[in-house]
Formats: sequence, structure tokens, C-alpha cells
Amino acid sequence: MRIGELSRRTGVSVPTIKFYVREGLLPAGRLTSPNQAAYEETHVRRLRLIRALIDVGGMSVAAVGEVIAAIDDPGRPVHELLGEAAHRMVPRYGDGSAGGDDEGEDAGPGSAEARKRVGTLLDERGWHGYAESPAGQALAVALTALESVGHGRFAEVLDVYADAAERVARVDLEYVAHHVAREELVESVAVGTALGDAVFAALRRLAHTDASYRLFGREGEGEDEGETERAEGV
Amino acid sequence: MRIGELSRRTGVSVPTIKFYVREGLLPAGRLTSPNQAAYEETHVRRLRLIRALIDVGGMSVAAVGEVIAAIDDPGRPVHELLGEAAHRMVPRYGDGSAGGDDEGEDAGPGSAEARKRVGTLLDERGWHGYAESPAGQALAVALTALESVGHGRFAEVLDVYADAAERVARVDLEYVAHHVAREELVESVAVGTALGDAVFAALRRLAHTDASYRLFGREGEGEDEGETERAEGV
Repeated sequence: MRIGELSRRTGVSVPTIKFYVREGLLPAGRLTSPNQAAYEETHVRRLRLIRALIDVGGMSVAAVGEVIAAIDDPGRPVHELLGEAAHRMVPRYGDGSAGGDDEGEDAGPGSAEARKRVGTLLDERGWHGYAESPAGQALAVALTALESVGHGRFAEVLDVYADAAERVARVDLEYVAHHVAREELVESVAVGTALGDAVFAALRRLAHTDASYRLFGREGEGEDEGETERAEGV
Repeated sequence: MRIGELSRRTGVSVPTIKFYVREGLLPAGRLTSPNQAAYEETHVRRLRLIRALIDVGGMSVAAVGEVIAAIDDPGRPVHELLGEAAHRMVPRYGDGSAGGDDEGEDAGPGSAEARKRVGTLLDERGWHGYAESPAGQALAVALTALESVGHGRFAEVLDVYADAAERVARVDLEYVAHHVAREELVESVAVGTALGDAVFAALRRLAHTDASYRLFGREGEGEDEGETERAEGV
């Protein structure tokens, strides 16, 4: 198909398509004349991947470029490919300055206490992984930021979050094992990581609305027994 | 304290502090002479909140400004305040163009099928809320993006995500009810929503590493029985 049809099929403008080709995110079309290129279904698929990662995953063009490079790199062990894809998908964190007063501690982002808590969490749960991994560091930074705004006690509910993350990660991997071909693994991990975050964040907000209504909204109306029970239990 | 000390205490540069004051994110200091202002502990706290939302929550200065405005608005019903704070914290989504081929459908972001699935999910779980809320729309957009890259079947595991979100939202609200004073509610919801997302995303990646190691890493070594069991179960 020509670039105009590719644009219509994907909702991505022609100049943007050309930009992605220049940046190496999208393979060039096959030249059919000096001024015209033909594009295939693989281009449609790739463009949708790029837009999903940018629009819904909130990733930068540069970050998408790194993920695409991993996708296009053939023949590495599955575990390594997945690990690398996951590493590239770690949310960005700041310079750790949210730690505030505690400057001059051991190197590494986040407070020493938060980093220690991440290590303890991995040990206690028996998770294969390292506190110094990008994800471990991102967790330490988030915990440090919570401490810095007076919510250090939030760490007490960390286990509920970890349980939830474990369940979600398990179905993610089961989905991958069931429905994804070897050559699409890295792409699926990238998509699943970015879009799975978006799905969970949206569901958490919907669940907040419900939980807050049950806890604080129109008390005494007792629309269902769960409401009364939960309000009393807190 | 003077602005220099405020800067040292929070790790935020003096020009950035002045920028936040101009943008209305931070109240001005109390003038002690025509060229000098005094800042209080409330400024330290507010600056840490701003940095946490920007650095770890990944929010824009404009979005933080909206949250701060809600925090500074006194005397509305708790449920309403929480709902509004939650609405402001919804992740941004694109123009829905990831839907691709399906243009010209009913108004609203995401595909008609995805929007319907969000409504069904709310009904089936008995969640108080609307598919047309910002969070509902964000979920529809994320599901549409998954469809567009060939992972429509991901919706089959949506219930596991919703269970996890429900548990997390419940402890979030219990934490708020236990540890948060009325005047800090909106601030806590904003912080908890943004940083809770970051905490969960980091934990999900750590859990992915573990799950992928168990599923794909060094098969046959059988380091623990869980590994074998899970690999066979998939």
C-alpha cells in the first residue's frame, strides 16, 4: 500500500510516519519508483505498536526506539530478552532529590532505609531479582518520596501491593506463554508492560471511586451490607 | 527560614522555588523586608509534595497546579473531594487514534467494544462508578490499544487485574481512614494515587522478573518445587 493508505489505516499522519522512519522506529517502505514506496501489513502493525506505547504507555520516542531495537534483535535466550525488555520499561524516576534532608548517604537512588526495605521485600517473598535492578531502584525512589511527604507508614501496606503485583505478573506471564509466538515475545512484553500499567492504573481509580463511596459517601443509607461492614471494620 | 535554607532542605533550586511561587503551586513567603521573605515548615512540606508528584508521579507542572488547587479548596464533602482528586489524577490518554480502522463510530474515546466491556465490568463487579468517567474512558482507551496491536484476548485476564485493583484500592482507603486527618485528605489521595501507581508498576516489574525466571529461566534445574509446578501448569 502507499503511504497515504498506511496513514488512513493507522490514523498516523504522513509527516509523522516519515519521522518514525528517519528515527529508525519504522522500517522504510520498499521503493517502487524513485519517489514512491510500498508498505506492508507489518508496517501497520508496527505503527500501531508505536502509537500504543506513546499514546497509552506514555513513553517517549527515544524509549520506544530502545524497545523497538530489542524487538528487532533476533536469537537471544527468552529469559534474557524478557528481562531486558522489562528493564527498558521501568518508569523513569527523578534524581532522588525527593529524599531531601538525607543527602550524603550511600550511593544509589532513594533513602538507605527504602533501599533496605526493597531488599527485605525480595528476600521475604523469595522473588528472584535484585534491589539494585532498575525496578528495585524505582521502588526505592517511590518509597522515599512517600516518606518525604509524611507517608512512610504506607510501607506497612506494601505487602498487599506486592501480593496484587504477583497475581497480575503471573497472569501476564501465563498470557504470554499461551498466546504469544516466540518471535513476538519481546513486543508483547513491551506492550503488556506499558499498557498493563495503564489498565491497572485506570482500574485502581475506578476501584477507588467505589471504595470511597462505600466508606465516605452517603453514610447511613446502607445500600448494601458490604458498605456497613466495611465502614465499621475501618 | 530564608529561601536558601528552604532550597537546601528540599533539594529544589532557588529559581525553581520562585517559579513554583509564580505559578501558584507554592504560597509566597512572608515578607520580612522589601527583598526578603520568610518560609515555614508548610513550605517544606508543600515543596516535597510538588517534587514527589513531578519526579515520581510523572505529572506535569500544570497537572500538579490543578491538584494543589483542589487541596487548597476548603470545606467540601469528603466523598466529593476524593472523587475530584481521583479524577484529576487520571492518566492522560491520546486522541484514541490507536483505534485505527474503527473511525466514525459513536463518540467517545476507545472502540465501542472496549467501552461496552468497561460498562460490563462495572456492572458485574457492582462498582459504584461510570464507564464515561475519566478513569472509565482511560480504561477503554488502554483496552482499545491492546486490541489494535493484536492483544484483544488480554481482556480475558481483566478480572485478575480488577481483583488486584480492588484489594489495593481497599487498603489505600483503609490507610486514608486510619492515618490521614480531614485537612490532609485530598493531598493524601493525590500523593497516594500518583506514588501508588509508581509503587505498583515497580513491584509488577520485580514480580515479572521472578515469574519469567520461573517460567523460562534455566529450565530443568528445579531449584524449588514451585518452579516445576508452575512451569507444568502453564
